Amino acid sequence: MAESENGAAAKRLKTDAANDCGDAGEPSSDSLVSDFEISRILRDCAREKIIFIHGKVKDQDAVVILEKTPIRQDTLSELLKSSQLKLQIKNDVYSTYQLHAPAHLNEIKTTVVCPATEKHVKKYLHQEVFLVEESGEDYRNLTLPYISSQSFSVQWVHNILEKKAEADRIVFEDPDPDTGFVLLPDFKWDQKQVQDLYLIAIVHRRDVKSLRDLTSEHLPLLTNIRSKGEDAIQRQYSVPPSKLRVYLHYQPSYYHLHVHFTSVEYDAPGCRVERAHLLSDVIQNLQADSSYYHNRSLAFPMRADDGLLLKFKEAGKV
Amino acid sequence: MAESENGAAAKRLKTDAANDCGDAGEPSSDSLVSDFEISRILRDCAREKIIFIHGKVKDQDAVVILEKTPIRQDTLSELLKSSQLKLQIKNDVYSTYQLHAPAHLNEIKTTVVCPATEKHVKKYLHQEVFLVEESGEDYRNLTLPYISSQSFSVQWVHNILEKKAEADRIVFEDPDPDTGFVLLPDFKWDQKQVQDLYLIAIVHRRDVKSLRDLTSEHLPLLTNIRSKGEDAIQRQYSVPPSKLRVYLHYQPSYYHLHVHFTSVEYDAPGCRVERAHLLSDVIQNLQADSSYYHNRSLAFPMRADDGLLLKFKEAGKV
Repeated sequence: MAESENGAAAKRLKTDAANDCGDAGEPSSDSLVSDFEISRILRDCAREKIIFIHGKVKDQDAVVILEKTPIRQDTLSELLKSSQLKLQIKNDVYSTYQLHAPAHLNEIKTTVVCPATEKHVKKYLHQEVFLVEESGEDYRNLTLPYISSQSFSVQWVHNILEKKAEADRIVFEDPDPDTGFVLLPDFKWDQKQVQDLYLIAIVHRRDVKSLRDLTSEHLPLLTNIRSKGEDAIQRQYSVPPSKLRVYLHYQPSYYHLHVHFTSVEYDAPGCRVERAHLLSDVIQNLQADSSYYHNRSLAFPMRADDGLLLKFKEAGKV
Repeated sequence: MAESENGAAAKRLKTDAANDCGDAGEPSSDSLVSDFEISRILRDCAREKIIFIHGKVKDQDAVVILEKTPIRQDTLSELLKSSQLKLQIKNDVYSTYQLHAPAHLNEIKTTVVCPATEKHVKKYLHQEVFLVEESGEDYRNLTLPYISSQSFSVQWVHNILEKKAEADRIVFEDPDPDTGFVLLPDFKWDQKQVQDLYLIAIVHRRDVKSLRDLTSEHLPLLTNIRSKGEDAIQRQYSVPPSKLRVYLHYQPSYYHLHVHFTSVEYDAPGCRVERAHLLSDVIQNLQADSSYYHNRSLAFPMRADDGLLLKFKEAGKV
């Protein structure tokens, strides 16, 4: 499954959409939406024009997600010609209007989860985010014991490395057991355009959990990923290294070392400064100090419902 | 003006909207929109549902910007009850629909710039972005001569420090000439809610252009900004340090040292890893190596029309 930050439900929906297109277009007389009674707003993304609502359909818990659709280039002429306009402000060369478009040119994508479990609701509920500063000692005393106790499975990563899964998705492989890796598209990327290019390099070594484990010993591995990853992407997608943002996450979403390659023009999830570490910086830091990532305080964001945050709170670190 | 990444036209529109509300609601019979002939798409932001179009109205150049509006919480009930629905996919507890909403509940905000100059068009045109790696030597040979030759004025910064402008906006000041600074809201923040909190600390010292000039000599300045800035924000806005992302930009948008304080939950422009440097990392790096930022290669993004990019290209560095 390469990397995904989406939870199980979102993945499931994606899969459904791929497998189940036969149903598309079928009209529904028994609408889950019109019977929906709103209880509360779980999350409201004004910038992206998405809203997540919790409520009930005939006494069953339900989540409704409304998302305005992107403006379609192929319907622009019709949209501009056939809409009603109301002038709001005119000043010099600038004017603004309210545009009332015909409904079929201005759809809202609606997703209903019903009956919804507590887990669905929690997944969509806006969570507070805290920035934690983890010293090297905090890592050894709090984080490492926590991630070991959770025993997050990386079997799906091993399946990819052993070609038991997703073998047809691999774009490039260096099989060297010490410095080698496989490169494959992240599931968030539909591979239709390079504007949102997103690939993941997963190392063959199984003894490096994250940035925290890296020392100068791993410099050949990291420089190899950088140069061969960039070469493969240039060959395969004609995207040069100067158009790539290459980075690691801390905390990662799974504890087997991997590197993200995204288009620098793509606002990829997880590319903000508090979670991403540019591979070029990581390499330079390890060249200067082999124990850089063992000793430094590293800041990272955690959702309020993250079990690790609780450990930091119990220890009085947040 | 504190910091703003918006160009003049966007600011102008904001001002117009504030000053010119008297015109709101006036219907237009002579619509600039319906006569608009599309020439090309300047930019298409599918995630944010915005599109920028270049075209002509009666032989005059024009730019039209369409942006779907956020989903309004106060109209949700009406929206769900009065819309037409078409089932797309149903699988287990998940179902998706196309929702056709009444036009007045699903507006598109339309902005017209007419006649538009070449400058308007260039402002809205999508620009390629390149990631440049600048060594310490590149900085001294290419960047420093370039920014000196451009002699970007920071008079407006001096006006703030001298209380000749924006004095009423200052949230906190430490007047110390070596370690002091003023803290004020960034212009991007309307100060209506802390979800998108954004303040800037501007140092009183005038001899530090950017991250590149910092050495261990500046550690008292940086630690002072961090602790007093966090204290002031906690006092004034009840936002604790664990909810703040505190960082510098490289390249900065103006060459007088300043530090950004944003809510960690706010997807602030310029908080991506390729431009932002966490103050906590900067402090640790200078503690370990006073010449860290003199010697390191620093990666940063540049638009294709940036004059500095041309210098790097001429030198064969991109």
